[in-house]
Amino acid sequence: MITTLEVLKEIYEKEKESYLNDYFNFLKFKSIATDPVFKKDVEQCANWLENYLKESGLQVEKWDTGRAPVIFASDLRAGEDKETLLIYCHYDVQPVDPLHEWTTPPFEPQIRDGEVFARGASDNKGQCFYTILALKALLKMHKQLPVNIKFLIEGEEESGSVGLSQILDSKKEALKADYLVIVDSGIGNMQTPAITLGARGIVALQMSLQEAKFDLHSGSLGGIAYNPNRALVKMLSQLHDDEGKVTVPGFYDAVIPLSVEEKEAISFDFDHTNHQHMFGFQPSGMEKGVSPHEAAWTRPTLEINGMWGGYTGAGFKTVIPAKAFAKISCRLVPNQEPETILKQVQDYLKQLTPPGMQLEVHIIAGHGKGFRTTPHSRIVKLMSESYSQVFGKPCKNILIGGSIPISVQLSEAAGAEMVLVGLGLPDDHIHAPNEHFGLERLEKGFLTICRAIELFK
Amino acid sequence: MITTLEVLKEIYEKEKESYLNDYFNFLKFKSIATDPVFKKDVEQCANWLENYLKESGLQVEKWDTGRAPVIFASDLRAGEDKETLLIYCHYDVQPVDPLHEWTTPPFEPQIRDGEVFARGASDNKGQCFYTILALKALLKMHKQLPVNIKFLIEGEEESGSVGLSQILDSKKEALKADYLVIVDSGIGNMQTPAITLGARGIVALQMSLQEAKFDLHSGSLGGIAYNPNRALVKMLSQLHDDEGKVTVPGFYDAVIPLSVEEKEAISFDFDHTNHQHMFGFQPSGMEKGVSPHEAAWTRPTLEINGMWGGYTGAGFKTVIPAKAFAKISCRLVPNQEPETILKQVQDYLKQLTPPGMQLEVHIIAGHGKGFRTTPHSRIVKLMSESYSQVFGKPCKNILIGGSIPISVQLSEAAGAEMVLVGLGLPDDHIHAPNEHFGLERLEKGFLTICRAIELFK
Repeated sequence: MITTLEVLKEIYEKEKESYLNDYFNFLKFKSIATDPVFKKDVEQCANWLENYLKESGLQVEKWDTGRAPVIFASDLRAGEDKETLLIYCHYDVQPVDPLHEWTTPPFEPQIRDGEVFARGASDNKGQCFYTILALKALLKMHKQLPVNIKFLIEGEEESGSVGLSQILDSKKEALKADYLVIVDSGIGNMQTPAITLGARGIVALQMSLQEAKFDLHSGSLGGIAYNPNRALVKMLSQLHDDEGKVTVPGFYDAVIPLSVEEKEAISFDFDHTNHQHMFGFQPSGMEKGVSPHEAAWTRPTLEINGMWGGYTGAGFKTVIPAKAFAKISCRLVPNQEPETILKQVQDYLKQLTPPGMQLEVHIIAGHGKGFRTTPHSRIVKLMSESYSQVFGKPCKNILIGGSIPISVQLSEAAGAEMVLVGLGLPDDHIHAPNEHFGLERLEKGFLTICRAIELFK
Repeated sequence: MITTLEVLKEIYEKEKESYLNDYFNFLKFKSIATDPVFKKDVEQCANWLENYLKESGLQVEKWDTGRAPVIFASDLRAGEDKETLLIYCHYDVQPVDPLHEWTTPPFEPQIRDGEVFARGASDNKGQCFYTILALKALLKMHKQLPVNIKFLIEGEEESGSVGLSQILDSKKEALKADYLVIVDSGIGNMQTPAITLGARGIVALQMSLQEAKFDLHSGSLGGIAYNPNRALVKMLSQLHDDEGKVTVPGFYDAVIPLSVEEKEAISFDFDHTNHQHMFGFQPSGMEKGVSPHEAAWTRPTLEINGMWGGYTGAGFKTVIPAKAFAKISCRLVPNQEPETILKQVQDYLKQLTPPGMQLEVHIIAGHGKGFRTTPHSRIVKLMSESYSQVFGKPCKNILIGGSIPISVQLSEAAGAEMVLVGLGLPDDHIHAPNEHFGLERLEKGFLTICRAIELFK
């Protein structure tokens, strides 16, 4: 039995105040799993989630991974003859620096102009929470759901899902499902509902260069020492050619172009005016001849996500640093093997290292493959239908440039057909200061999940 | 009347304990003038110096510069028919980061193996302090000195002497002198006494590149955005060619090669084994065909003293930063005009900036010219004689690669012939963690200054 959207909206409206209050409590946890300083906060967030899901009527387990705990909630009362839907979200968030650029503190949520500002407001606590609310409301309304629900909320998505990845094999049975819906994606704008058919993979490493045993005086030794900053910029500058292509030998070897069917099914529209308005620049990072969305969705990249060397404080210090550092990540497209790419990048870095300079490379744990799914799968059609109904418009297909590192492994472990959905917007400032998520989207997200689950029958 | 070295050594030995105690008190002040956080510490250090010099028997004035105060001490009782010697030192020190690399805290001096470890132990509090001790001892011993003494101790040498430079014009009369001895230099090793005939000048700037209005997600926008880190490394990598030459157009135009006389007078010996032992690397930063000491002493350089962009903390953050930064300085040789070089570097940076990227350049106040003096001047001969006697060996002539930004302006304002002296050693770790200065050198420095002053007659 399908509840009308009007009834669902009424339910949401009635509970809105307490929903928002709970959402804010969720946002207040400093669940930055990548930084050991926040270990306790991560655990407290997991405990809160565990209780909240229990109170919402789900069976809940907390899986120990030796790292951030994984929350696994389920309602299997639909029965063995019904299909099983596995939903994936995460409760960890990105670091908050540069902290001084936040208008209000990142873990003290605030509403301004209908948007909730907080770290994780969008990625992924906002999307996770409307999913929770949908399950909570449905379980309150119905004796039984038309589909078995398994809901996995992990705590290390932003740092490569290392813990979850290690226990996946032992949890195959628990995770077994027909479909995997990852609620960690977005749409281009509020006028264009869309389902995400693919994401990029990711690998990451940190490197350092060292010459002298300690920092040197740039007067006494300037001209004698080869400054590691100079060596680093020289090396890093050789990682792209003048046409924006990554120069790492073999980097593009495994890239498979989109099929005609994929090209037709996916909407590559790009609104330059809106982009300029949101981000303040015109796209200029693409390889020559590649359109913006093709670049971000179907081509691999290599980015310097961080670099530093020498004095970075106030004033000036005439130092030649002993060491210079960079954090580098690559986004991968389907068929590119993370291990292969990591080896290619490392080999090339070694090759580029000037004589006398010592290179150290540290691989960041938790890489993941890219994937693309077919527009014709049942779960894609079902989610599309839900989005179309909630938005009152036809639903498009898109890809994303981001990565859900665990996605391919997880869908394989669960034996499930995968799709990505979500209501993130390009200017949510995810991973950046002043991240935000709209109250309107919290409700629409709630409706899309309610409706999708009811469409199973 | 000349006191024998034996008597001077006896005096030093007798007072050693109290001398060391006072030296440690001087080292405890966190006089990092470049960082506004330490404004109060800088002032307290100046006040301490003022009192200490008064108690040592000197007339003392504290000159307000609107920034770090300048201490001006004098003893003019030699009379108008005698020559006047202006001595220059500084009480400000370099920042201490990376703090975690210090074996003991930088402002809690400690003696290990005859070396005093503390920020400023060598540069310049150590050298400043043995100069103070020499004056203190001489004034206690003699009714009258053979030369009028003016002693200037400033508080912004490490950040370009901005305050002193602003008041120089108004202090010309007070500073008037025949000779200027800057006690902020060094020797190659303890077996080779040397006088420094020249130093390099310096200019410095900070630059930033920006594309987007805020930090971006390297998944969503990676491939669309031109990462400012990538733009920065590309720009910075173009500042040197493959032979190590600075590529800034016009950079070398004003460089005048050493004269035959200078080449003969200056010892360019370089001990590769000792260098490897001290610093852990073989010289590789020179322009092609230039020897290490020629490179550091007679050629201009461009160094990236600091750079940063994106995430630099623990773990990983998949960000494309809005901004990337670099701190750049150039060491200049005589005849290179700081203003000209700054303009050339800025023009070149503008030229290298990729379309769409916004370049901002901030010139660091307090640049200074390079200089070289003749080996035949009276003050050079007199200081050489003092060093020869104290070390019991012939004294050589060297240059330094470092800069005393105010030196040329100061010698012009005072109308004085200039020379640099000092007992810094190449592995004192100045400007770096674990800076140190030897107790033996504190005594030898004391002796050289005592002896030099007594040689005026």
